[in-house]
Amino acid sequence: MPTPVRTDIVIDRHAKDVLNLDEAARAADVLIKDGATGICLNGTFGELPSLTFEEIVDLTRAVVESVNDRVPVFAGATTLNTRDTIKRVRAFREVGAHGLNMGRPMMSAMSDIAIVQYYRDIAEEFPDMAIFLYDDMQAFKRPITTEVYAELAKIPQIVACKYRTMLVLGQPIANNYANDMRAVDGRIKLLTHEYDWWISNKLFDMDAIWSSSISMAPGPIMAMQDAILAKDYAKAEVIRADMQWASEGLFPKTGIDDWHVSKIPAMKTRIHTSGYIKCGPALPPYHVAPEERFEAGRAAGMRDREMHKKYPHKTMRQAESAVREVSTAA
Amino acid sequence: MPTPVRTDIVIDRHAKDVLNLDEAARAADVLIKDGATGICLNGTFGELPSLTFEEIVDLTRAVVESVNDRVPVFAGATTLNTRDTIKRVRAFREVGAHGLNMGRPMMSAMSDIAIVQYYRDIAEEFPDMAIFLYDDMQAFKRPITTEVYAELAKIPQIVACKYRTMLVLGQPIANNYANDMRAVDGRIKLLTHEYDWWISNKLFDMDAIWSSSISMAPGPIMAMQDAILAKDYAKAEVIRADMQWASEGLFPKTGIDDWHVSKIPAMKTRIHTSGYIKCGPALPPYHVAPEERFEAGRAAGMRDREMHKKYPHKTMRQAESAVREVSTAA
Amino acid sequence: MPTPVRTDIVIDRHAKDVLNLDEAARAADVLIKDGATGICLNGTFGELPSLTFEEIVDLTRAVVESVNDRVPVFAGATTLNTRDTIKRVRAFREVGAHGLNMGRPMMSAMSDIAIVQYYRDIAEEFPDMAIFLYDDMQAFKRPITTEVYAELAKIPQIVACKYRTMLVLGQPIANNYANDMRAVDGRIKLLTHEYDWWISNKLFDMDAIWSSSISMAPGPIMAMQDAILAKDYAKAEVIRADMQWASEGLFPKTGIDDWHVSKIPAMKTRIHTSGYIKCGPALPPYHVAPEERFEAGRAAGMRDREMHKKYPHKTMRQAESAVREVSTAA
Amino acid sequence: MPTPVRTDIVIDRHAKDVLNLDEAARAADVLIKDGATGICLNGTFGELPSLTFEEIVDLTRAVVESVNDRVPVFAGATTLNTRDTIKRVRAFREVGAHGLNMGRPMMSAMSDIAIVQYYRDIAEEFPDMAIFLYDDMQAFKRPITTEVYAELAKIPQIVACKYRTMLVLGQPIANNYANDMRAVDGRIKLLTHEYDWWISNKLFDMDAIWSSSISMAPGPIMAMQDAILAKDYAKAEVIRADMQWASEGLFPKTGIDDWHVSKIPAMKTRIHTSGYIKCGPALPPYHVAPEERFEAGRAAGMRDREMHKKYPHKTMRQAESAVREVSTAA
Repeated sequence: MPTPVRTDIVIDRHAKDVLNLDEAARAADVLIKDGATGICLNGTFGELPSLTFEEIVDLTRAVVESVNDRVPVFAGATTLNTRDTIKRVRAFREVGAHGLNMGRPMMSAMSDIAIVQYYRDIAEEFPDMAIFLYDDMQAFKRPITTEVYAELAKIPQIVACKYRTMLVLGQPIANNYANDMRAVDGRIKLLTHEYDWWISNKLFDMDAIWSSSISMAPGPIMAMQDAILAKDYAKAEVIRADMQWASEGLFPKTGIDDWHVSKIPAMKTRIHTSGYIKCGPALPPYHVAPEERFEAGRAAGMRDREMHKKYPHKTMRQAESAVREVSTAA
Repeated sequence: MPTPVRTDIVIDRHAKDVLNLDEAARAADVLIKDGATGICLNGTFGELPSLTFEEIVDLTRAVVESVNDRVPVFAGATTLNTRDTIKRVRAFREVGAHGLNMGRPMMSAMSDIAIVQYYRDIAEEFPDMAIFLYDDMQAFKRPITTEVYAELAKIPQIVACKYRTMLVLGQPIANNYANDMRAVDGRIKLLTHEYDWWISNKLFDMDAIWSSSISMAPGPIMAMQDAILAKDYAKAEVIRADMQWASEGLFPKTGIDDWHVSKIPAMKTRIHTSGYIKCGPALPPYHVAPEERFEAGRAAGMRDREMHKKYPHKTMRQAESAVREVSTAA
Repeated sequence: MPTPVRTDIVIDRHAKDVLNLDEAARAADVLIKDGATGICLNGTFGELPSLTFEEIVDLTRAVVESVNDRVPVFAGATTLNTRDTIKRVRAFREVGAHGLNMGRPMMSAMSDIAIVQYYRDIAEEFPDMAIFLYDDMQAFKRPITTEVYAELAKIPQIVACKYRTMLVLGQPIANNYANDMRAVDGRIKLLTHEYDWWISNKLFDMDAIWSSSISMAPGPIMAMQDAILAKDYAKAEVIRADMQWASEGLFPKTGIDDWHVSKIPAMKTRIHTSGYIKCGPALPPYHVAPEERFEAGRAAGMRDREMHKKYPHKTMRQAESAVREVSTAA
Repeated sequence: MPTPVRTDIVIDRHAKDVLNLDEAARAADVLIKDGATGICLNGTFGELPSLTFEEIVDLTRAVVESVNDRVPVFAGATTLNTRDTIKRVRAFREVGAHGLNMGRPMMSAMSDIAIVQYYRDIAEEFPDMAIFLYDDMQAFKRPITTEVYAELAKIPQIVACKYRTMLVLGQPIANNYANDMRAVDGRIKLLTHEYDWWISNKLFDMDAIWSSSISMAPGPIMAMQDAILAKDYAKAEVIRADMQWASEGLFPKTGIDDWHVSKIPAMKTRIHTSGYIKCGPALPPYHVAPEERFEAGRAAGMRDREMHKKYPHKTMRQAESAVREVSTAA
C-alpha cells in the first residue's frame, strides 16, 4: 500500500509531521475488507526512500494496530546497510509487525555472496520475523540470480517474493521465472505482477500475486483472483484488458527509464485521484516531476473510478447497499 | 579518503564502535602533507552506505579537527532523500565541515527535474556550504545529463565534480565530457579520473583531478601532477603506465559489473595492504566478497608498496631523512 | 539442419567445391525418418552467411531431392536486401523448395515499417512459397515487435516462426511471448526453443518447436515430443535436464556475447562429433575461434553420443535390430 | 560518398538499372575539386547492403574513371563472408580501385580472433590494395577492441580507419579512442567524426577525419579543416556549431536506435535535398521509413543550402565567379 501523506500542508524540503496516519489505518482496514491477504509497507511507491526513520516506524505502528492480526503486515526494512536494517527491524518488532518487506542495500550493487549473507544476517538476528523478498532490478541494480534464489530458499523465514516483472504492457523485460521457480522448489512463493498471474498459475499453479492496483481499485484484481483460481483464464484475460485500459498512458512513450524516474509521483497521483486511498503527494525529492507525468497519473486515476463502477469492491457494495437500505427505510 | 575501521574487533552485523578515528585524523593530516588540496569523505569506497548517521558525523568531526582548515573538507551528504540530507548537513555544519561531497538519492533513479531541485534545495538551505558533485552512473543509475549540468552550473555553491570515468583501463565507458564542459562554462570543475588527466588538461587546461590512488600511494599522483602542469605529457604517460601496473588484476576479467559489486572490499583491502592508510576491513553488507577479490586487492596493495619506493611521497622522504640524520648522529 | 562441408579438403579462404552434398541428402533423409516434420536450411549454424549463392542453391537442390516432398523444405532466403532475396528465391523455386527460412537484412537494423514491407514484398512476389520467419535479436539486431507481429500475421504465407529464445540455460533473455501470441492470434505458429516447449504448450497448447538438437541426437527431442503431447510435463522436464547435461560447457562462462561470436564453429564441431550428421568444419570467416570453443563443442558432441544410447533414435534402433537379425540368422 | 540512384524510375522491389552513374562520376569529381583527399564508396549511407554485386562494380568503375588517380578510391568490400569478399575485391581490382572500404561479416558477430584472420586473409590475398577499416558498432555489432587494433596495426595495408563516433550531438557513445591510438602506435590513422576533430587533433595532432557532411555541404568542413590545421580551435567550434544547427532534428528524440533503423533514407533525403549531390532515393528494403524521418532529412537538406551561402565551396565560388565574368562581359 502507498504511504498516506497529508494534503493540508506544503510538501517541500521543510515538511514535518507529514504522515496522515488516520488514512493509513483506514486504508489498511479497507484493503483487508476488500480482499487483501497481506499488507506490504514501503515498497517503491510506498516511498521507502523518502521517509525518515521515525516516520516509517510511526506508519508501521498505525497500520499494525489497524490490521490487528487479521493479515500479516510486512514492514519496509530496506536500508543502505545491514546494521541500519537491524536497528530498523528492532523498532518494527516493538510495534508488532509480523514480517519484513525487504529489498537490499543498493548504493553499491551487491554481489551474490553478499546478498545471501545479508538476508541470512537479518533472518538469524530476527528468527521470529517472516521475510517478503523484494526483487527489483531497477531498485537494486541486479536481479536475484537463480543461484542466489537456491541459497535464499534455505532460509526458512523467507516465505514470499515480489518477483521482478515478466510480461507487462508489451515491455520486453528480462526474466527467468521458470528456472527460479525450480531453484526455490516450493519454499518461496515467487509472486508475479497481476497481469502475469495467468502465466504463473497455468505453469505452476501459483495461487497468489503482489498487487499495486488493489490500492486504487480492488474490484478488478479480486475478480481476476476468482477467475484465476477457477481456472477461467479467458475471463481473467478480459479483466486484464480492462486493467490495462485503466493504466493507459501511465507508461511514457519515451521508454521505461522515464517511467522509473517519475514512478513515485505518477503512482501516488493516480492512487490519490482514484479516491480509494487518499495517499496525498510524493515526498521530496520525488515531489517534482515533468507535469506530463502528473497528468498521466490523474488520467489513470479517473479511469480507476470507472473501474469502481464496473468492478465494485466489497466495501463499496456494502456502502451502497447501506445507502439503499436507508433510502428504502426513509 | 577511505573510512578507517578498527582491526581489533570482529566486523559483522553486531559490530559497534567500529571507527578508528585516530587513524582517520592521521590519514587526513598525512594526505595534506603529501599534497592533497581537498578531502572528500564518504564516497563509495569511503563507505557512505555502510556507516550509521552517528558514525559519519564522528568521522567528519575527527577529520575536520585534524585538517584544521588547511584544505577544505567535503563531508558525505548522500542519503535516500532530501530531508535526511538536510538533517545530516546540519550536523556536518556543526562539526565544521566546509562543504559537501554530494551524490543523490538512488533507490529510485531521479528525473532531471528532480535532480536540479534536489541540489537547489540543499544549496538554498545551506548557502555557506560548498558542494562537490558526485556524478557516478553506477551509484545513481543515470548520468547527470548535459542539460542538468547547465542548470547546476547556475548554483554558485557547486564548485567541483567527481566526473564519471572516461577512458580507464581499456573499458569503453560512456562519456560526454566535452559537451558537459561546454555546458558548465567554467563554473564547475569537472574532475576526471587520474588516468584521464592528460586528456582534460590537453583539451581544457584542467588543473585538477579527483584521486583515489592518493590513499594508497601519493607519490605517483603528485609526480603526475608535476608532469601535467608542466605539460610534460610523455612523462605523465610513463607514470600512468606505472600506476596501471600497480592496479593490474584489480578489475575482474569477468567484466565491470563484477568490479562494482565488490569494489568496496577490494579497494579497502588494497589500501590497507599498501600500508599508507590503515583503513581496515569493509563494513557489512560489503564485508563479504568472493575470495578472489580480496586477493586481487592484496596483490595490488603489495605493488603499491613498490610504488612507494619508486615514487616516494613527501612524508616518507622526510621520515627517511630523519632516520638518516639520527643514524648519522649516532 | 547444418550445412555439411567436406572434411577431405583444407577449409580456408581459397576453399572451393566445399559442400558434401551426399551427406546433406543423407542428413535430410535420416532426419525425416527420425521424426522431423519440416527442414529449415541455412539458419545461423546452417551457415547462411558463409555460403556463396551457388552453394546455397546446390545445397537446397540436394536436400529437396532427397526429401522428395515427404516434409516441407524451407530454404535460406536471408540476404542483405530485397532484390538479392528475390533473385535467390527465384532459384529456390526452380529447384523445388516449398518455402523460405527467412530472416531479414541486417547490416543496418530495419525499422518496423521496413520489416513489414520487406516480408510483404517477398510474399507478393512469390505467392506460392510458404514463409518460416526467423526472429533472432542477435542476428537482426532487434526483435520483431508485437505491433509488427500483428501486421505480419495478415500475410497468409507466413506460417511459422523461429521465435527468439525465452528461458534457456538460466540466461535471462528478453521476451514477450504472451503478447506476441495474442498479436498473431493463431495465424503464425511462434515456435520456441526446445527447452521452453513445456511453457508454450502449457500456456498455449503449442504442438511444435524448432529444434537444433535433432541434428545431433534426435532421440531426446522426439521423446520430449511424446511427453509434451501427452501432457506429461514431469517426464519432459527429466528429458530437458538430460539435454541440458549434454550441452554443459557449451555456453561460455564469460557470457552470452562470447557464445554468439563463436557459435557457428562450436555448434558445427558439436554436431560433427556427435556422429549423427557429419557436417564438417565451419566455413570462413567463422572457421577460426578460441581453441576452448572447439573443445567445448567436442565435449558436448561426446555427451550427445551417450544420449544416443539413453534415447536411441528410430534409424539407430532399426539398424541395431537389423544387426541383431543378421547375428541371429547367423 | 552516397550512391546516386535514378530519380526517373520507380524504386521498389522490381527496380533494375537503378544507378545514376553520370551523377556518381560528377559527384566524385566535384568532391575532389572541393577538397576531398580520398573517396570511400559504399559505407552505410553509401548503401552497401542494398546494391547487387554488379551494381557495386559498376559504381566503382564509374567513380574510379572519374577520379582518374587524383585521390585514392576505396571500394565497398564488406560482404557476409571471406570468399564473397575475395570475389568482390577481384572485380574491384580489375576496374582499378586503389583500396577497400572494408567492414566485416556481421550476420553473426565476429570473435576477436576471427576479425584478425579475416583482415589478414584479404590483405594477404591482395597485397597491392590499401585497406580503409570500417569500425561501426551498430553495423558490426561489436567494437574493434584495443587488442584487435594492436594486431591489425601489424598489417601494412591497413592505412586508416573510420573510427566509431565519440562525442556527437550530446549522445554519450562508448569509446576508447586514447587506448586504441596507443595500440596502433601511428600505423593506422583512426579517423573520428568531424565534430570530434578538435579532440583528435588536440590530443594526437590528427590531421584528417572522415566526413559525411562533405557530401551535402563541403564548405563548412573545409573551413573547419583550415581552422583545425591552424590550431584555431575557437573558430573550429563556431563552424561545428553551425554544422550542428544544419543537422538539427535529424536525430530522432526517441533515441539513437530510431536513428539507426532509418538513417539510410534520412541521409539520402538530406543529401539529395541539399542539391550538392543528386543521390536520389534509398533502395529496398530501406526505401520505406516513417514519414517523419523523410521530413527531418528534407529540413536538414534545406539548412544545408543555407550553409552553402555561409560557407561556399570552391566549385560554387568558381561557378559564381564565372557567372559574374559573363555578366560583366555582357
